[in-house]
Amino acid sequence: MPKTNAFYAQSGGVTAVINASACGVIETARRHRARIGRVFAGCNGILGALEEELIDTSRESAAAIAALRHTPGGAFGSARYKLGSLEENRAQYERLIEVFQAHDIRYFFYNGGGDSADTCLKVSQLGARLGYPVTAIHVPKTVDNDLPITDVSPGFGSAAKYVAVSTREAALDVASMARTSTRVFILEVMGRHAGWLAAAAGLAGQGRDEAPHIILFPELPFDRAAFLARVQESVGRCGYCVIVVSEGARDPQGRFLADAGTTDAFGHRQLGGAAAVIAGLVKSELRLKCHYAIADYLQRSARHIASQVDVEQAYAVGKAAVELALEGRNAVMPTIVRRSSHPYRWQVGTAPLSRVANREKPLPRRFIRADGFGITAAARRYLGPLVQGEAYPPYRDGLPDYVSLRKSPVAKKLAPWSR
Amino acid sequence: MPKTNAFYAQSGGVTAVINASACGVIETARRHRARIGRVFAGCNGILGALEEELIDTSRESAAAIAALRHTPGGAFGSARYKLGSLEENRAQYERLIEVFQAHDIRYFFYNGGGDSADTCLKVSQLGARLGYPVTAIHVPKTVDNDLPITDVSPGFGSAAKYVAVSTREAALDVASMARTSTRVFILEVMGRHAGWLAAAAGLAGQGRDEAPHIILFPELPFDRAAFLARVQESVGRCGYCVIVVSEGARDPQGRFLADAGTTDAFGHRQLGGAAAVIAGLVKSELRLKCHYAIADYLQRSARHIASQVDVEQAYAVGKAAVELALEGRNAVMPTIVRRSSHPYRWQVGTAPLSRVANREKPLPRRFIRADGFGITAAARRYLGPLVQGEAYPPYRDGLPDYVSLRKSPVAKKLAPWSR
Repeated sequence: MPKTNAFYAQSGGVTAVINASACGVIETARRHRARIGRVFAGCNGILGALEEELIDTSRESAAAIAALRHTPGGAFGSARYKLGSLEENRAQYERLIEVFQAHDIRYFFYNGGGDSADTCLKVSQLGARLGYPVTAIHVPKTVDNDLPITDVSPGFGSAAKYVAVSTREAALDVASMARTSTRVFILEVMGRHAGWLAAAAGLAGQGRDEAPHIILFPELPFDRAAFLARVQESVGRCGYCVIVVSEGARDPQGRFLADAGTTDAFGHRQLGGAAAVIAGLVKSELRLKCHYAIADYLQRSARHIASQVDVEQAYAVGKAAVELALEGRNAVMPTIVRRSSHPYRWQVGTAPLSRVANREKPLPRRFIRADGFGITAAARRYLGPLVQGEAYPPYRDGLPDYVSLRKSPVAKKLAPWSR
Repeated sequence: MPKTNAFYAQSGGVTAVINASACGVIETARRHRARIGRVFAGCNGILGALEEELIDTSRESAAAIAALRHTPGGAFGSARYKLGSLEENRAQYERLIEVFQAHDIRYFFYNGGGDSADTCLKVSQLGARLGYPVTAIHVPKTVDNDLPITDVSPGFGSAAKYVAVSTREAALDVASMARTSTRVFILEVMGRHAGWLAAAAGLAGQGRDEAPHIILFPELPFDRAAFLARVQESVGRCGYCVIVVSEGARDPQGRFLADAGTTDAFGHRQLGGAAAVIAGLVKSELRLKCHYAIADYLQRSARHIASQVDVEQAYAVGKAAVELALEGRNAVMPTIVRRSSHPYRWQVGTAPLSRVANREKPLPRRFIRADGFGITAAARRYLGPLVQGEAYPPYRDGLPDYVSLRKSPVAKKLAPWSR
């Protein structure tokens, strides 16, 4: 097979370890210089291809590429940009081919979630549909852990570890303060459609007296009366109550709590996230002093507390993507296959993109305790191994020493793209 | 001097390292068994003394006490409870003496902030005023860093490190997303009256193009027009804007932004913290996609990312407190004295409580950049050393292995206390 170039891009919400996958792709490609010329990274995801904004990763030193393994965020820029169907957006795909042809790109590595798998699948069909064969491999990534087939999505384990550690730590704080001050602490975590990260908070404690005392999952409708009774019970028994609420928690009518139009004592609608709504409810109904934290981007960028398992898996799927491409596979995604939970053993497998694209893996009901407010032993068996090990970044002057790449642009050869 | 017992209590908001001070007190007292019998910890701060709810720390193993050094929160429970003046609250002080006498307590170690220093000062006067001499030493602690005389308050360095690390990490995330999604990220940090923690976020980057692009300090009135112009400028130049806002940021009328009564497009008053108000402003005035995080208790309990310097200083002031007491000093507080910033050298000094109690150390204006939105080189010189070094806790099953003490209660000898 003649030597051609590769395109790599990051897509959707970034994670603490998506750059570890980039590192796996680039380092592995560099070990196969006979077959892969250069890896061009898309500046801001797939937009980099459409706009011919390519970064020549061959201009980065080996040390800089190695440092991607411990650097959070998306080093090349990501994008929330979904390519439409080939039929209705033919011009976009033709532009992709034009750019690929101009830069002799025949390998396409796309690092993203479910939507990105769909885009990657379409690119894999460019040969059959538009006569320009591209080997397209999807590299899985999402803190939401909602990709199907793979046992876990790289990025999730580190966010899960952040959420569990933060819950354990904040619980110790509020437990100290409860006698005369804050009785209820609420942590809002990500997961608009699936409660995987909320579930991970459950690792912080065991049994009904250890925090978190209540988890509110998006999978179950918010039961106001049962919730308030449980808060009251926890405060009565333990002196305090730690609540973890998913940003995607919904009322029985299916509306996000965050949008539920709760009104305060003055009749004003409460804005803000789910945590603010829950705090307002606890204050107005139970008259308990409340604090709340919203982890937001902190939870998915917290490389300082990344899971070692997650970092290794993120690297492994990047590496496997290149190896699969070189084996001639197309339209597949490397997956994490769990061989055993105790001891934890995993290996890399593959899944056809046709079975990955646009499918979401919900949190199974058997992972949620019967009362709806906590996780089961099965959930602990699943989640526990994913947060194992600490993979600390290097520090300089007391702060993590994250890498900034040179990002040398590849000279443009084409006229500017107009959508 | 005959052997007597000691009382130790934690007061006010807890920190990631207040237990390291407890460890310093208890371990040092154990090394002086000839003079200090047992250390009784107050259950929930000074309330433990008033209610005769004492924990016998001599029942804890050496390993458990050593583990306090890496465990956040207040291991014995804290309290927000200020003793009034001796004149007006004589009964309370007489109750204290009754409890101290019943348990042969002649040493009083009080681990807290400015209000606690005032309480400690009053206890130090029990001998002269009420005929029961107690050696009272204040052990400094507060994430707010507003204690006078001491160069830094133990607890601040770790919270500062958390804030700086989180700002750096979240900035990498939003920088990746800015092209097609979030342009503005806001992190709300603690500091109701002083901007020390907001200033610490400034360590995350250098120069005007590195995050945080804007810091909003409680020391300066919020200038809406200048702020919006700066956000716009940062987005124009860098593609995104990272803002750190102190929970204590105020409008020109001196009202907290969090209470400023901002109304949304529907005329509803916006509730929630300063971050929600700033996000609402950015969205409505600049039409930019915004995300915000509220660190709340996470920042002051994040022992997993504690500053090594802070842990050492927290331990040192606990140790020094016992040594000062044994030297016969009364009504003093061990302080951190900075000998040099580069290289960082410090030692323990002392301050009379009369000069500590009820005084706040504001963030100096010379630490805030002339434009009001960032920190100066002088601030960096001051803050830099305080976040140095990582003092990771041990982990078990992927989570920090924090200690739970036995907390053996001391048998009560007195009738219950009624306020």
